[in-house]
Amino acid sequence: MSDTDAITDFPANRWWVAGFDWELTDKPLARTLLGHRLVLFRTSDGAVSALEDRCCHKELPLSLGTLEQHGLRCGYHGLLFNHGGQCIEAPGQARIPGRARVRAFDLRERNHILWIWIGAEGVQPDIEPPAYAFHDDPAYSYGGDSFHYDAPWHLIHDNLLDLSHLGYVHVKTIGGNAAVHMNAQVQVSADERSVRVVRWLPDSVPPPTYTAAWPFKANVDRWQEIDFKISHCEIWTGGMDVGTQSLDDPGRHGFHMRGFHGVTPETLHTAHYFWTVATNPHPDKQNITDLVVSQTAATFLEDKVIIEAQWQNQQRFPSRSQVYLNIDAGPTRARRIIDQLCGSTSRLTAEPVEDRSTM
Amino acid sequence: MSDTDAITDFPANRWWVAGFDWELTDKPLARTLLGHRLVLFRTSDGAVSALEDRCCHKELPLSLGTLEQHGLRCGYHGLLFNHGGQCIEAPGQARIPGRARVRAFDLRERNHILWIWIGAEGVQPDIEPPAYAFHDDPAYSYGGDSFHYDAPWHLIHDNLLDLSHLGYVHVKTIGGNAAVHMNAQVQVSADERSVRVVRWLPDSVPPPTYTAAWPFKANVDRWQEIDFKISHCEIWTGGMDVGTQSLDDPGRHGFHMRGFHGVTPETLHTAHYFWTVATNPHPDKQNITDLVVSQTAATFLEDKVIIEAQWQNQQRFPSRSQVYLNIDAGPTRARRIIDQLCGSTSRLTAEPVEDRSTM
Amino acid sequence: MSDTDAITDFPANRWWVAGFDWELTDKPLARTLLGHRLVLFRTSDGAVSALEDRCCHKELPLSLGTLEQHGLRCGYHGLLFNHGGQCIEAPGQARIPGRARVRAFDLRERNHILWIWIGAEGVQPDIEPPAYAFHDDPAYSYGGDSFHYDAPWHLIHDNLLDLSHLGYVHVKTIGGNAAVHMNAQVQVSADERSVRVVRWLPDSVPPPTYTAAWPFKANVDRWQEIDFKISHCEIWTGGMDVGTQSLDDPGRHGFHMRGFHGVTPETLHTAHYFWTVATNPHPDKQNITDLVVSQTAATFLEDKVIIEAQWQNQQRFPSRSQVYLNIDAGPTRARRIIDQLCGSTSRLTAEPVEDRSTM
Repeated sequence: MSDTDAITDFPANRWWVAGFDWELTDKPLARTLLGHRLVLFRTSDGAVSALEDRCCHKELPLSLGTLEQHGLRCGYHGLLFNHGGQCIEAPGQARIPGRARVRAFDLRERNHILWIWIGAEGVQPDIEPPAYAFHDDPAYSYGGDSFHYDAPWHLIHDNLLDLSHLGYVHVKTIGGNAAVHMNAQVQVSADERSVRVVRWLPDSVPPPTYTAAWPFKANVDRWQEIDFKISHCEIWTGGMDVGTQSLDDPGRHGFHMRGFHGVTPETLHTAHYFWTVATNPHPDKQNITDLVVSQTAATFLEDKVIIEAQWQNQQRFPSRSQVYLNIDAGPTRARRIIDQLCGSTSRLTAEPVEDRSTM
Repeated sequence: MSDTDAITDFPANRWWVAGFDWELTDKPLARTLLGHRLVLFRTSDGAVSALEDRCCHKELPLSLGTLEQHGLRCGYHGLLFNHGGQCIEAPGQARIPGRARVRAFDLRERNHILWIWIGAEGVQPDIEPPAYAFHDDPAYSYGGDSFHYDAPWHLIHDNLLDLSHLGYVHVKTIGGNAAVHMNAQVQVSADERSVRVVRWLPDSVPPPTYTAAWPFKANVDRWQEIDFKISHCEIWTGGMDVGTQSLDDPGRHGFHMRGFHGVTPETLHTAHYFWTVATNPHPDKQNITDLVVSQTAATFLEDKVIIEAQWQNQQRFPSRSQVYLNIDAGPTRARRIIDQLCGSTSRLTAEPVEDRSTM
Repeated sequence: MSDTDAITDFPANRWWVAGFDWELTDKPLARTLLGHRLVLFRTSDGAVSALEDRCCHKELPLSLGTLEQHGLRCGYHGLLFNHGGQCIEAPGQARIPGRARVRAFDLRERNHILWIWIGAEGVQPDIEPPAYAFHDDPAYSYGGDSFHYDAPWHLIHDNLLDLSHLGYVHVKTIGGNAAVHMNAQVQVSADERSVRVVRWLPDSVPPPTYTAAWPFKANVDRWQEIDFKISHCEIWTGGMDVGTQSLDDPGRHGFHMRGFHGVTPETLHTAHYFWTVATNPHPDKQNITDLVVSQTAATFLEDKVIIEAQWQNQQRFPSRSQVYLNIDAGPTRARRIIDQLCGSTSRLTAEPVEDRSTM
């Protein structure tokens, strides 16, 4: 993908997840976001920046350069760029050419998440990046990682918005019995910019990750609440001993997993998946957060295998329509929102043809 | 290659080799044959199937699924498909959409070979797959393997139909002295659907594999009979002590190697090579079959190196004509048959221009 | 790149470096030069040859064949080719087809360098390949290597003609203090076929490679003289104790490094870099040549990392203009010569737009 056609292929003029604050170390980080090849970095004064990853002189990636106190120095001829992308030092000459600058993007930190504004030329952010309070909530502890996908971003959202796959893909961790998921009670609601899928699995056998993390007595009332917000999903899942509280009590107790799922297109056909999982450690259990995070990582790697294989196969069989099932209601609503924002009718984000014979 | 254009690029409406019966285990097998990406499997009731390797729901390869007693279950959302490709179970809904089915191909076993019918839409097989009795003949024991080639299928037939290369490519095993092969007595005959090449190497030094496998007294009368049958070649080679029997005696004794060579296009530019070699163990020699099979495998890997390098080079030098030699008579006849069946005038299967200056 | 369009993409009708004489061993060598896939070899009689790397029969690379006393034998069916590319033996037939020949190129050795004439059809060399006396000068000893670049050839010349990068890319070896290079005295001169860049770094701290190789007293008067000659650069660098001789004295003493840099396009986007470095060992220092050669190799691998990353980035950001700095004077003059010889206006060899705001 060329740099210039990126805007129209994805929902623009919004904050996207660029990574996590702990990814900015003493070396610059190369990362492509929505078709823009960028270098992300933090200088020793604490300021963070996102610049186009191309020196304006001989085009070396700036990500091969070195961090200085107030900027980033190119690794070929030593041009020094400040946080705004302006060259402030050039080798062998006192006067710096006026054109010696690279494009800068607005990069911000909030609740340990890096957010970047990707917009049309001249469109500045009019809102703050989204908050995500669980990363700073003392009742929770969390961990996470950044995964790279050889698949388009919308396939990751499809996966998150239809958790009926848990019984087939994640049997060893958060899945458990397939029949439990096939009989889940599902409610889908949506507005112009978000989709909400609520799944209840009352009186069900807790899956392996749950029993390892929490001393359940027997069966659990289990819930999954998925909120799709274009740039990311927030997923609240958990379980409690059967009958102790209502599944729609917002203050319900039991075992909680709060998932943050930043899904950012890299190119049309590849994506970043920036995830964390926060949990509420049980006082009688040790190292539960580590266990939950490592089992979540294993679970998400299972998804990655499936989704990348799915994408490879979609390329093997181009122009085929898909059969629509009831479980597709949530993903389909999200796809409509994405399509509308892109103004696109491309197959990549097209809604599957519904099978009328089943209606 | 897309799925839909496969028919016209290869000889259609016939049985092709899909593999060997021992390749169907407790896991489904992904294999692309004549441009069709398929999943091959055997259920516990013994029945074998070939389905299009794409779930009709979200397009995951079915080869990532799991085998059940009566079908194959998709690894993403659990749709279950029977041997005919019909979905017989879908998650979260009792009524299965009518369009929930995948294309099925006719797959059969005969003499431990898997044969698949690849035909135009609606053209059903009107004959049984070919027999190959040596796999079930107690006088012979055999072994073999499935090789993948990064080269078009017709280059493998070229190689099989002109064994003059043995003296250069296979010096260490079945080749032996190059001069022996250059002076071979060769007869080529053909009809509309087959080519036969017979090479006699009377009173010649037996090559390494022969002397390891059989207690020859000295020189041998050696033969090579190659039968090209479009989807495969059958090659009967062997040797006997000089003068003991006529080289055209169909019941002649001595050391025998019966080769089955299934050559099936994967795509226009890649191929499968399904081979076995059967031999008649000498009562005084132990483990001769293992020796012959392992030396044959080594020999065929030598061919693979040559043929893949040849194909890489043909791509480096496109649109070049080849010089014709007398040894090309057999391959050229086979190429004419293939061309006629494809109705193709593409260079890939074009006959080399004969060099008139040599006539 | 196809074989036939190679001529117009590069400066033609001239000698190019094909490698070094020590690269021709008892096996043929496959090498692509200016888009021509060739096999280079030396027979036991000492003669060297460059043939098109394609047997005219079945198109196997001849580089997979075997060397005989008077020629090269194909590894598939044994056709034997002489130094002129004529087939002189064919399997199974006494009469050799007249068309059985492959294209031969004029390959010559001079001062241990292999030179090949790449010209339009029928244009024969009218001059000898260039001499390079330092390879046969007893005052010097040398070593070198052949590197492959995933980058176009002109980027290597850019690098050689602007040594201001030494202070950023080669800090550990020949670079040293960046400020020294930023304040270098530079003179650029050029004619129609060559460019000369002279850099003086008087009274400067000698870099690590210099102090390891020569017992300097303290600071040195250091020089770099770069001669671009289209097919190669010759670079004379060195240093002497401050004030001992003039920096323009052609017979000046001190530490010398004489670099030969053959830069030959492989394809439009890849290149060969054939380099040697010759030095004058100090009588009090042991194994200085080995040290200088190994540090030079390390230095050139640093350049390779930078140049290949630069090229990858230029492909990520197509059609962008570069900012011009004063240090680009030498490379820009060389680029003009290349452009003129190619008759090309392609971006690959286009001169960067000068930034008028700095003038």
